[in-house]
Formats: sequence, C-alpha cells, structure tokens
Amino acid sequence: MDRIPILKMGNLLLVTIQVDMHDRLAMTLQDDLTSRIVKDRAKGVLIDISALDIVDSFIGRMISNTAAMAKVLDAHTVVVGMQPAVAITLVELGLKLDGVRTALNVERGVALLQRME
Amino acid sequence: MDRIPILKMGNLLLVTIQVDMHDRLAMTLQDDLTSRIVKDRAKGVLIDISALDIVDSFIGRMISNTAAMAKVLDAHTVVVGMQPAVAITLVELGLKLDGVRTALNVERGVALLQRME
Repeated sequence: MDRIPILKMGNLLLVTIQVDMHDRLAMTLQDDLTSRIVKDRAKGVLIDISALDIVDSFIGRMISNTAAMAKVLDAHTVVVGMQPAVAITLVELGLKLDGVRTALNVERGVALLQRME
Repeated sequence: MDRIPILKMGNLLLVTIQVDMHDRLAMTLQDDLTSRIVKDRAKGVLIDISALDIVDSFIGRMISNTAAMAKVLDAHTVVVGMQPAVAITLVELGLKLDGVRTALNVERGVALLQRME
C-alpha cells in the first residue's frame, strides 16, 4: 500500500482513509492531492475518516495541513464520517482540526461544499 | 483494519478497496454491504479498485460473489478504476468478473448505474 486513491466526483475529490497513516504515506497523499486539485480543477476535497477508530495528533495535523494546502489552491476541505468516539477523543484531548469543516457523511459533505463554492 | 467503509451517495453505495483482502475481511465486507443495500435501499454499488496493483482469482471471485449478492437484492454492481496492468492480467489469466460491469472511473460508473436503473 503506497498510496491512497483519490476519486473524482464532479468538481470534488474524495479520499477515504482506511489505513494507519505514516509519514511517507501522508506526504504521498498530500503530493497526489495537490496535483489532482490542479489537474482536475477541483473546488472541494472530501476526506472520509469513517474507518478510523482513533485520530491522534499526527493524523489531526496531517488533515489540517492538507486542508491548508488545498485552500491555497482555492479548494475547500470537509472531513466526513467521524465516529462518535473520535469526536469525544478530539475534544477531550483538545485536538483541533484547524481550518477544516466537518460533516456527518459524504452526502452532507457534498452539500456543504456545494454551498461553499 | 477490520472493515472496509461503505459510503452512501444518493441511492448508490461506494466501496474503495485499498488493502489486501483476506477471507475474514471479504466476508465482513459482504455482510456489511448486503445489510447496507437493504438499510439504505441502494440501487447500485460502486467498487473502486484503483488502489489494487493485482487482482488474483480470490479477489475476482470475491467481487463476483458480492455482485451476485447485490443482484438478488436488486442492486447493480459496477467495478471502477481498474489499472491498465490489472486489465491485462485479468485477460491473460482468463479471469472473468462474472456478472460485473466495469467503468473507467467513479463518474462513469455513476452514469452507468443511473442508466441501468
């Protein structure tokens, strides 16, 4: 597993994170995603984290950085599918997903991105 | 990694296969997917395999079986994102994805499923 696939849906890109992130995989994802935003002229990025039981500070920072990169390329980022336990942990640990909007699921994330355009 | 997330998009379900399948993971996916087809009243299933470099007979059979299960629940299955090398190998090895339609990417898969409804 060297890279996380990025799916194009209209002018949005969808990334489903299913595996434990490590430095190299996170860097590859950021490289791929920024290239695809430019190539596909994407206006929004959906990051699905429904498969993650834990979001630690590394993942949190990776998501925030990815969103910041997308933003300078004029694309909004929405994180979708967060499990209840992850939401609890994020708040209890004081982890912030800076610059990132969240939505309950992909459908609501798509609706949010379409309103933000 | 105990289960592959299933994303709902309108009346379609999207599954992105990113990891090596093994028996238990495949069975969990089939359980989850059939439950979700019923629960979400889905009319179609998209299986994205763009992250797979190899599709062997086990994966091929798993996809065919999943499509057969979806079919008896009145949902069509479309496999999307197949890499060129995978297409070559499938044909050279004579592996057939029985009962499964394919499309180049998610967007074309969605279009195909909407025509099939």
